[in-house]
Amino acid sequence: MEKSFLSHLECGRCGKEYEPEKPWQLCTCGGPLLARYDLGKIRSSVRKEDLARRAPNLWRYREFLPVRKEENIVTLGEGMTPVLPLRRLGAAIGLPHLYLKDEGIIPTGTFKARGAAVGISRAKELGVKVLAMPTNGNAGGAWATYAARAGIRAVIVMPKDAPVITRNECAISGAELYLVDGLISDAGKIVSRAVAERGWYDASTLKEPYRIEGKKTMGLEIVEQFDWQVPDVILYPTGGGVGIIGIYKALQELQAVGWIGEKMPRLIAVQSSGCAPIVKAWQERKNESEYWENAYTIAFGINVPKALGDFLVLKAIYETNGCAVAVSDEEILAAQRRLAREEGVFACPEGAATLAAAIRLREQGWLHPYERVLLLNTGTGLKYPDTVEVSVPLLEKDQDLPN
Amino acid sequence: MEKSFLSHLECGRCGKEYEPEKPWQLCTCGGPLLARYDLGKIRSSVRKEDLARRAPNLWRYREFLPVRKEENIVTLGEGMTPVLPLRRLGAAIGLPHLYLKDEGIIPTGTFKARGAAVGISRAKELGVKVLAMPTNGNAGGAWATYAARAGIRAVIVMPKDAPVITRNECAISGAELYLVDGLISDAGKIVSRAVAERGWYDASTLKEPYRIEGKKTMGLEIVEQFDWQVPDVILYPTGGGVGIIGIYKALQELQAVGWIGEKMPRLIAVQSSGCAPIVKAWQERKNESEYWENAYTIAFGINVPKALGDFLVLKAIYETNGCAVAVSDEEILAAQRRLAREEGVFACPEGAATLAAAIRLREQGWLHPYERVLLLNTGTGLKYPDTVEVSVPLLEKDQDLPN
Repeated sequence: MEKSFLSHLECGRCGKEYEPEKPWQLCTCGGPLLARYDLGKIRSSVRKEDLARRAPNLWRYREFLPVRKEENIVTLGEGMTPVLPLRRLGAAIGLPHLYLKDEGIIPTGTFKARGAAVGISRAKELGVKVLAMPTNGNAGGAWATYAARAGIRAVIVMPKDAPVITRNECAISGAELYLVDGLISDAGKIVSRAVAERGWYDASTLKEPYRIEGKKTMGLEIVEQFDWQVPDVILYPTGGGVGIIGIYKALQELQAVGWIGEKMPRLIAVQSSGCAPIVKAWQERKNESEYWENAYTIAFGINVPKALGDFLVLKAIYETNGCAVAVSDEEILAAQRRLAREEGVFACPEGAATLAAAIRLREQGWLHPYERVLLLNTGTGLKYPDTVEVSVPLLEKDQDLPN
Repeated sequence: MEKSFLSHLECGRCGKEYEPEKPWQLCTCGGPLLARYDLGKIRSSVRKEDLARRAPNLWRYREFLPVRKEENIVTLGEGMTPVLPLRRLGAAIGLPHLYLKDEGIIPTGTFKARGAAVGISRAKELGVKVLAMPTNGNAGGAWATYAARAGIRAVIVMPKDAPVITRNECAISGAELYLVDGLISDAGKIVSRAVAERGWYDASTLKEPYRIEGKKTMGLEIVEQFDWQVPDVILYPTGGGVGIIGIYKALQELQAVGWIGEKMPRLIAVQSSGCAPIVKAWQERKNESEYWENAYTIAFGINVPKALGDFLVLKAIYETNGCAVAVSDEEILAAQRRLAREEGVFACPEGAATLAAAIRLREQGWLHPYERVLLLNTGTGLKYPDTVEVSVPLLEKDQDLPN
């Protein structure tokens, strides 16, 4: 790796700038810091055609990433997840150009690996020794895993209802894991207090600037995989919202370097009707969301009652003429079954929610049959065994199959 | 896809040839049929350099695969799994050039996806409507998943002790799933009777010729990922043995087309001391194994008391000056923890067994510090939650982290 083109950090709320070689957290105004690059230099240093021969992982976009020295890259081979055509299902629901990007095919089984890979690499580069974070499970599993590879100590706090398998990931990686009898917002408060007292690095969503840079690579990949065009619509399951913010950031950066034209995909935030603060804010044309009381959904990863980056999610939706949609847990489970039975994709419930939303939006006429529609499946269904009903006959050794 | 260079099928035991456009099962002698290609034509049609620009999945090796028409390819984006250097662990165990190929980063989370992708694609091409198979879990999950994508009906029989999550995969994909109170060999007998009676396609290990062609792509990828060289040693967890047979077949084909030289890696079959028929046969310098009574190991995927292809596994070991090693379940679990804590790889127990074997072989002086040693991790640890001990403190919402 030659070098990164990272130039500075900029508050996503007030615009204040920071020099990028210190482990900053939030802006003094409380807003999240975003990484900014010298896009003019990227434009003159690399052509999109140069990427074709690079290894199939997210580090192929190194010029758009913040890690300066190759030796600091902490990688498990993450990225370049497949984009699959869903021909049968697409035809059945009236969207013949339906695609799914499968983030289940990545270390730790979810898209959280992207944020962890880039976030941990940059933390290592900045000299971080201990980090702490709240999580709904998958981010904790991913950060614990990459922290182990980097030799960084990780302290993770997750709701006791988070997917059980993510506890295993944290435990076997040697992270210090705590459960809390509450929601991710409660876990966040515990982490905030500990960080303030002990001087740890806070790796909470958007409280450090680099997780989003990892998530951004989903947007870079989508464009490269669509042969440097953009799909018409991207549906994204939205909890903390870093994925959709990151994809939008990627598209803006690609426009700035001239690798794509003016057309933007419409970005759609998909939530569960049991926790839909972004949808409510969008319906009311507001720029921020309100805390969602008594949040509950089986799509645990999007059970986020109030996201720090909500205003950036809403901005991405408004500026791309997108929308926000809430679907029920029943619709999510039905969509999960259809994806598996009709297309062989065992998606997580969060990912399945995007199919449920696409069905709804097609019925309402908001999506059109000629459009290229991309579902973002954020992880593998293997991590959510409880969402599948199984009843299996047990045979004796010498028994025959029933007719 | 232009075309496949498949020329015929050949019995791996007696050499009898079969024309390849019918859905053959075993040879009349009971031996498994192997796909043979016109390697001379491959040599004159494609150069290894041509592959660099192809998509990062196993279909990049299409000339070496049996599927003739592109429209018959059933894919979920499988293949080109990462090869990771294990620097810290390698230094600690005296093997500074230690690598791991991570087959957890693939649809269904195990290397079984390769066999299913190619096997199901070819079954679709040959007009198969119903297939049946016994499985220790992961193969069943993979074949059920790819069968769903292909629109083929799948009947799966697995031991009741197989990993529970693989039941979910079969169930959600719409396969017909049965458990048996016994081992995979008992499941195999049930399938054999049903196939004989009902005329289904038997997709049991090596009873159809194409699963091995999918597994073969691991060997093709390893060589490409080592920049068209071979590592010195490959350690492979061996149950049915199709992976090691496939890797050896790939290496032979690459030699025949002149893409690699004469050097072969030493191939090592790793088994559990609770089920080690190949190790016993190798120690006794035999060409076939005997049925292993009372087989038991937590590495369930290699709990195979007698493999149909045992003679081919042993041939691969003898011809490459390899060996066979059995490790205990305790060594496997310790190796699984080390991989996660020291390298961030949450491997399945079968994959972890290869690290345990490498440690043993280094201590015995069979492996040397200057050698490039590749561990094959056949799947993700996420599918085996029971192998991880977790004890986590539960906090109340307003509680602080303990000191």
